[in-house]
Amino acid sequence: MKDRMKQKLETFINSANEEELHVMELVMDGVIRKHSCQNNSYLGGLLQAHRNIINDTTYEMTIPNTEIVQNALQIVHGGITATLLDSAMGSLVHHILPDDKACVTTEMKINYVAPGIGKELRCIATLIHKGSKICVTEGKVFRDDGKLIAHATASFFIINRNLEELLSK
Amino acid sequence: MKDRMKQKLETFINSANEEELHVMELVMDGVIRKHSCQNNSYLGGLLQAHRNIINDTTYEMTIPNTEIVQNALQIVHGGITATLLDSAMGSLVHHILPDDKACVTTEMKINYVAPGIGKELRCIATLIHKGSKICVTEGKVFRDDGKLIAHATASFFIINRNLEELLSK
Amino acid sequence: MKDRMKQKLETFINSANEEELHVMELVMDGVIRKHSCQNNSYLGGLLQAHRNIINDTTYEMTIPNTEIVQNALQIVHGGITATLLDSAMGSLVHHILPDDKACVTTEMKINYVAPGIGKELRCIATLIHKGSKICVTEGKVFRDDGKLIAHATASFFIINRNLEELLSK
Amino acid sequence: MKDRMKQKLETFINSANEEELHVMELVMDGVIRKHSCQNNSYLGGLLQAHRNIINDTTYEMTIPNTEIVQNALQIVHGGITATLLDSAMGSLVHHILPDDKACVTTEMKINYVAPGIGKELRCIATLIHKGSKICVTEGKVFRDDGKLIAHATASFFIINRNLEELLSK
Repeated sequence: MKDRMKQKLETFINSANEEELHVMELVMDGVIRKHSCQNNSYLGGLLQAHRNIINDTTYEMTIPNTEIVQNALQIVHGGITATLLDSAMGSLVHHILPDDKACVTTEMKINYVAPGIGKELRCIATLIHKGSKICVTEGKVFRDDGKLIAHATASFFIINRNLEELLSK
Repeated sequence: MKDRMKQKLETFINSANEEELHVMELVMDGVIRKHSCQNNSYLGGLLQAHRNIINDTTYEMTIPNTEIVQNALQIVHGGITATLLDSAMGSLVHHILPDDKACVTTEMKINYVAPGIGKELRCIATLIHKGSKICVTEGKVFRDDGKLIAHATASFFIINRNLEELLSK
Repeated sequence: MKDRMKQKLETFINSANEEELHVMELVMDGVIRKHSCQNNSYLGGLLQAHRNIINDTTYEMTIPNTEIVQNALQIVHGGITATLLDSAMGSLVHHILPDDKACVTTEMKINYVAPGIGKELRCIATLIHKGSKICVTEGKVFRDDGKLIAHATASFFIINRNLEELLSK
Repeated sequence: MKDRMKQKLETFINSANEEELHVMELVMDGVIRKHSCQNNSYLGGLLQAHRNIINDTTYEMTIPNTEIVQNALQIVHGGITATLLDSAMGSLVHHILPDDKACVTTEMKINYVAPGIGKELRCIATLIHKGSKICVTEGKVFRDDGKLIAHATASFFIINRNLEELLSK
């Protein structure tokens, strides 16, 4: 496997253009980021998700706008915006729950209002309602020029921190 | 840059475990898939999206459940499910539009009803309403054991195939 | 109070046009329908809601298109369509739950795709997912010419049939 | 018709209890409110909708919590909350549009977070995004004790003020 990977990289490097080389290094760095524990999932590493707890009702998450989050028109894919929103809102809820509780997203609705371009996407998640069983959150995604590109609301069902319960939902 | 990439791979290979090596090859293959035009975006290449036009009102898209689409609990990230849904529903609408028209997602709502596990995720997108300005679609995502994991509805605003109009929305 | 009501009706009758007289009789009949137990709420009586259990996963509810469900443009108000959808989907979930369980709507999303005109609105509610805590349903509203006017999905949280729990949610 | 209505009222009055008498007067007053142009629809009259323009991005609408807006459990029906939200958010959009433009709701999503009880419901609608074709709004409904009972987002498609276009959508 190791030799095959080196060979693949060698072949790729010899035929790739500048952008493709850049993207290859980007995804390699994403995996290395998980390997070195900078992110706790490969997806987080690939997206270069950066978290920032503002306070108990606000959570911030940013990702750079790289080639791997874009659709064929070089605009951030709506699904990546959704990934950022789900991550930020879910992290907010986890942050306010006691240690023995976790949460799962039960629904999310997103309004896309402007194209995702620019250098990075910044998501601000806030709490709309904290119930004993369900938390409802709001998320807004901004471009680096300050323009809102998406608005979301989501519901999170609170469970005991126990993978079995999650899987048997 | 080329030497740096080779060096990064060498260093990684020497310290990575089996899973990490597997994931590194996975993301390298994703970029190569775009490079060789098997997919029209890096994201599509990384997700290994496979498309299948069923008919004028139904579109199918599948992705394998790999390590790079999972959250820290090894369950498919809700944002990836959203990416699959947005892609499949958007592709359906593009498929039924005339060549000089395109569409942008204006809103999407997803209900998550079961955890994403198993070998692959299969999304079936169908048309709810075809208007002159807005199309409304439904999407369902299934695991390979047939269980529904997510249900979505989305609206697509129809535009002239013209990037400028899209960007100035 | 009784004499005041009679006097109000007398005054109204002397200055009302045909449509207004018709609507006054309509709302009086709505209250009488609740009084005579044909409907279990005044709202149900005013809307003349008619229920029809199709089977364990499908429930039908119809209301006539009267002046009192319309907006100022004589089109059915989107909120009335929402009322019909919420009622039909909630009734479906109640129907499939055991006698000691009830449910509350936690979220509903509606796509409005055509104006509500014609003689009546017919809602068909179906089950998308039956979980132990949350049920997800779909609802479609049709005109009497068969055209779809709205599509909805909703989540219902299952509770013990106990008003206190509901109120302290 | 006029005599029949008087006879219906007479019969009702003789067998109705206090609550039923109160509700009958309530619905009669609702029709009279439309007749005397206090409201521009019967539905608005029945709901006793009261409007208050705060500023160009905020609109307030309140309705009293009466028996006719409640479900069989004496809690405000989720569809009535939806009616209030749709009305307030739609009125906000109409308010900011030029005189030759109107709007139609294309989608609305509501999260219900607490039961609707108390004396009145107050809805605050604000603008999330003002586009040339689509406006996106947010609506919050509060009880008179200040508790949030519902949160909504909605999209409004902007049309020329022309009923034909609306009906042929």
